[in-house]
Amino acid sequence: MWRGIIEEFRDFLPVTENTPSITLGEGGTPLVRARNLERTIGFKGEIWLKCEGANPTGSFKDRGMVVAVAKAMEEGTELIICASTGNTAAAAAAYCAAADIKCVVFVPEGGIAKGKLAQMHQYGAKVIQVRANFDETLKLTQQIAENDPAVTIVNSTNPDRIEGQKTAAFEICEVLGEAPDYHFIPVGNAGNITAYWRGYKEYAGRCTCGRSDCSCCDTTICESCSCLTGLLPRMMGYQAAGAAPIVRGKPVKNPKTFASAIRIGNPASWQGALDARDESGGVIESVTDRQIRAAYKMIPALSGVYCEPASAASVAGLIKALRKGQVTNTEETVVVCTLTGNGLKDPDSAMEAMGEPIVVDADPEKVAKLLAE
Amino acid sequence: MWRGIIEEFRDFLPVTENTPSITLGEGGTPLVRARNLERTIGFKGEIWLKCEGANPTGSFKDRGMVVAVAKAMEEGTELIICASTGNTAAAAAAYCAAADIKCVVFVPEGGIAKGKLAQMHQYGAKVIQVRANFDETLKLTQQIAENDPAVTIVNSTNPDRIEGQKTAAFEICEVLGEAPDYHFIPVGNAGNITAYWRGYKEYAGRCTCGRSDCSCCDTTICESCSCLTGLLPRMMGYQAAGAAPIVRGKPVKNPKTFASAIRIGNPASWQGALDARDESGGVIESVTDRQIRAAYKMIPALSGVYCEPASAASVAGLIKALRKGQVTNTEETVVVCTLTGNGLKDPDSAMEAMGEPIVVDADPEKVAKLLAE
Repeated sequence: MWRGIIEEFRDFLPVTENTPSITLGEGGTPLVRARNLERTIGFKGEIWLKCEGANPTGSFKDRGMVVAVAKAMEEGTELIICASTGNTAAAAAAYCAAADIKCVVFVPEGGIAKGKLAQMHQYGAKVIQVRANFDETLKLTQQIAENDPAVTIVNSTNPDRIEGQKTAAFEICEVLGEAPDYHFIPVGNAGNITAYWRGYKEYAGRCTCGRSDCSCCDTTICESCSCLTGLLPRMMGYQAAGAAPIVRGKPVKNPKTFASAIRIGNPASWQGALDARDESGGVIESVTDRQIRAAYKMIPALSGVYCEPASAASVAGLIKALRKGQVTNTEETVVVCTLTGNGLKDPDSAMEAMGEPIVVDADPEKVAKLLAE
Repeated sequence: MWRGIIEEFRDFLPVTENTPSITLGEGGTPLVRARNLERTIGFKGEIWLKCEGANPTGSFKDRGMVVAVAKAMEEGTELIICASTGNTAAAAAAYCAAADIKCVVFVPEGGIAKGKLAQMHQYGAKVIQVRANFDETLKLTQQIAENDPAVTIVNSTNPDRIEGQKTAAFEICEVLGEAPDYHFIPVGNAGNITAYWRGYKEYAGRCTCGRSDCSCCDTTICESCSCLTGLLPRMMGYQAAGAAPIVRGKPVKNPKTFASAIRIGNPASWQGALDARDESGGVIESVTDRQIRAAYKMIPALSGVYCEPASAASVAGLIKALRKGQVTNTEETVVVCTLTGNGLKDPDSAMEAMGEPIVVDADPEKVAKLLAE
């Protein structure tokens, strides 16, 4: 049975024997083959969906947060804080509850879905709504952390979070036997594409020679062995067209997209995304809200995996790349798309996508007619 | 990495080499130690939470549904149908999407939360609202299935579902090394307590002698070996006080509780629940909505696990049993509580539990005052 990120990947994380081994069962998320999707979009190879919504709080953020909170415990932190519009706050609040550390979450007033607000509140975090926008709220949070050594801020500036998030790439390689040819991923704050690329590089650099005289086998990153054979994928990152600062080459002041989790105008890990693109021979491009909506509708119906709108940017990107001929379309080609969050996080978007309900009397004949349609 | 229920537990399930091996990554859910909860309720032993909300569609129903849909595929079913008020329909719709089988879900008009309606719709199921209550809707669904051999009904009358659900007990035994002393579980339709009890009995009856002349080792249920040593837990089942037919000994016409997933007046697996209770030396009792609400608030804040209201009946039951002296309260006592569904399934209940929001200006001094409180 799965032991959580810290125990499963101890040798690849910045943890010591003094780091508390906390877990809510994060990581080990399903990698689901989507054959109907392959057929429907005319792709001859394999499409695998990495279902990060299966994490404890419903998003990939749990992977990094468990490491960040464990390190904060090790350092004797008394209070953990963050500024957030949703997923980060839920993850912080949950792991603070597990670790029995006080947690305060700052959210811009009115800028957050009620369901997400309820979730972080249920985890016992103190939720403070600030009369300000997100940027000002983040600045305020940073000021509080700077003034008090007993306070740890767990926004994406916290390096332990990227370290934890890279483990998703390890899991993909374990299931597939090696890295895929292409990895499609939504790009918002760009921490995740940065983390995956780091993970793929570390996995490829892991010694597996098995020689009895090798001191690094299976435990650390091998830097000298001549036995390294790991492959690396091309990293294919997709921003929403209305929130595409990296594609445009400059921050976007008022980012707009219905995919709220990637509605970010000035990504914290901008350079990491560029490095992932350039080192892997990949792309950072944009997809329109119409393309995201189409993929958002297509994914659960063709695969059985329910994701939030931002997640669908990865599959929308794959469809676009196929059309542009950026992806080799052969039987041997293996593609992974990351679905970053659970569809249950955003019932409003799902209801919007629903058509008019079908209503019928409890009459077998009338029902039979409906079924025949 | 986890391979899903069918592959992980093939030898314990009614599957053959002809059964398609489908999966969305169900099962393998976290078993989380809840130390803060132990301390808070004054329990000296260990409390472990079985987090079934981590399943692909957010509830334990996925374990049984993957088996039911795979068997339906094997038998050449063309259409899968069910009557449901939420979780069953979501699971059916998701696995039908994965299996590329047509799915029709019948729901009583107005009797279902909008978020759950949106979820099953996103999975591509045809959702038909019937102008009738749940009992009439179920009867209609059964009539349709009876009249057409190409149609399979996957309500809990389908025996493959209980078979799949029993695997949660196997997982608990694997993690703990043996069965717990007590297993607390919500009781609605009573299929889950029936399934867990079957699972514990099968696990305890599994041959592990390792003798080279034993033909049943590690593959089948051993019926004759003298090496069986498995322990069995006492099964502690809890209904909501307003929907407690088994406790009262007769069906409840208008069951009432805010824990909607156990709002059932005439459980399909009534006898299975009685057998689990009597064979294990356990209890079936009731907890009030006030007790369920208190546990529903306590669980995420003290453990970091977010569940839906019905799930909290297990922990509410533990608190009640402790007070009544029905549970040995020693350091050696091991308790498991099943949390049946994800808290994200029911944002309305979570919002109801929330107090008034705290709102503040973006002023460090005002914020510092709030933090000091």
